[in-house]
Amino acid sequence: MLTVFSDNHFMKQALLEAQKAYEADEIPVGAVVVCRNKVIARAHNQTELLNDVTAHAEMLALTAAANALGSKYLDECTLYVTLEPCTMCAGGLAWAQLGRLVYGASDDKRGFMRFGKSILHPKTNVEFGIMMEECSKLMTQFFKDKR
Amino acid sequence: MLTVFSDNHFMKQALLEAQKAYEADEIPVGAVVVCRNKVIARAHNQTELLNDVTAHAEMLALTAAANALGSKYLDECTLYVTLEPCTMCAGGLAWAQLGRLVYGASDDKRGFMRFGKSILHPKTNVEFGIMMEECSKLMTQFFKDKR
Repeated sequence: MLTVFSDNHFMKQALLEAQKAYEADEIPVGAVVVCRNKVIARAHNQTELLNDVTAHAEMLALTAAANALGSKYLDECTLYVTLEPCTMCAGGLAWAQLGRLVYGASDDKRGFMRFGKSILHPKTNVEFGIMMEECSKLMTQFFKDKR
Repeated sequence: MLTVFSDNHFMKQALLEAQKAYEADEIPVGAVVVCRNKVIARAHNQTELLNDVTAHAEMLALTAAANALGSKYLDECTLYVTLEPCTMCAGGLAWAQLGRLVYGASDDKRGFMRFGKSILHPKTNVEFGIMMEECSKLMTQFFKDKR
């Protein structure tokens, strides 16, 4: 029997990744890439560890997913990410021709939505607000700890 | 005696990188990062070789420059790139707080300028059109070969 998992199920996986980032003192953002109901890539923000501004969860997940599939293009995949992607990541998702993007919390300051959906590939479906509260909570806690 | 090199000098270095991409059958874009009059990173587009849409010249140069400096931030650096960066790369340059961006040819279809300069860090100075003809020529030749 094929079990079709819900968006919440996969966002929980992305949250587990975000939690790993939190524990490593990285801004807690996590992402997973799902293809045909299966997680093919998992990543969390590693900008501090790698000393690299490009090491966002989404970028690392894109690279890992392409490796897993043997294809640069992710048109049959969904990327779940706990936070609204920034313009860099949205640009990367556009090049990958991502099929579907699902994000949790919004990021009014750094998120790609400031520039509108046209920054993504025209065929990418977008949903947001999935487990928003849990996704935001981790971010809020992180910046509270820093104060 | 300190020789201060011109923008043309460094763009020529970026063009040498673009030429390497051309020879490897990659879209011919090259970049160098210069800090205190010295090239600290060189890269060219490797999306085909690495099977990775994120492997643009600028992204690879950002990562390499951060490694060379031991700092994620490139506020004292200039990035020379043969083609106008895309939104992904511009977003990366923003996170790196790049001091100065110099690009050769414009890219009306994919370039970040469609979304305006605010996609970059507010402190990044931008110049373009340096050796534009040489930079464009390589791109035109590449796509002509493909037909």
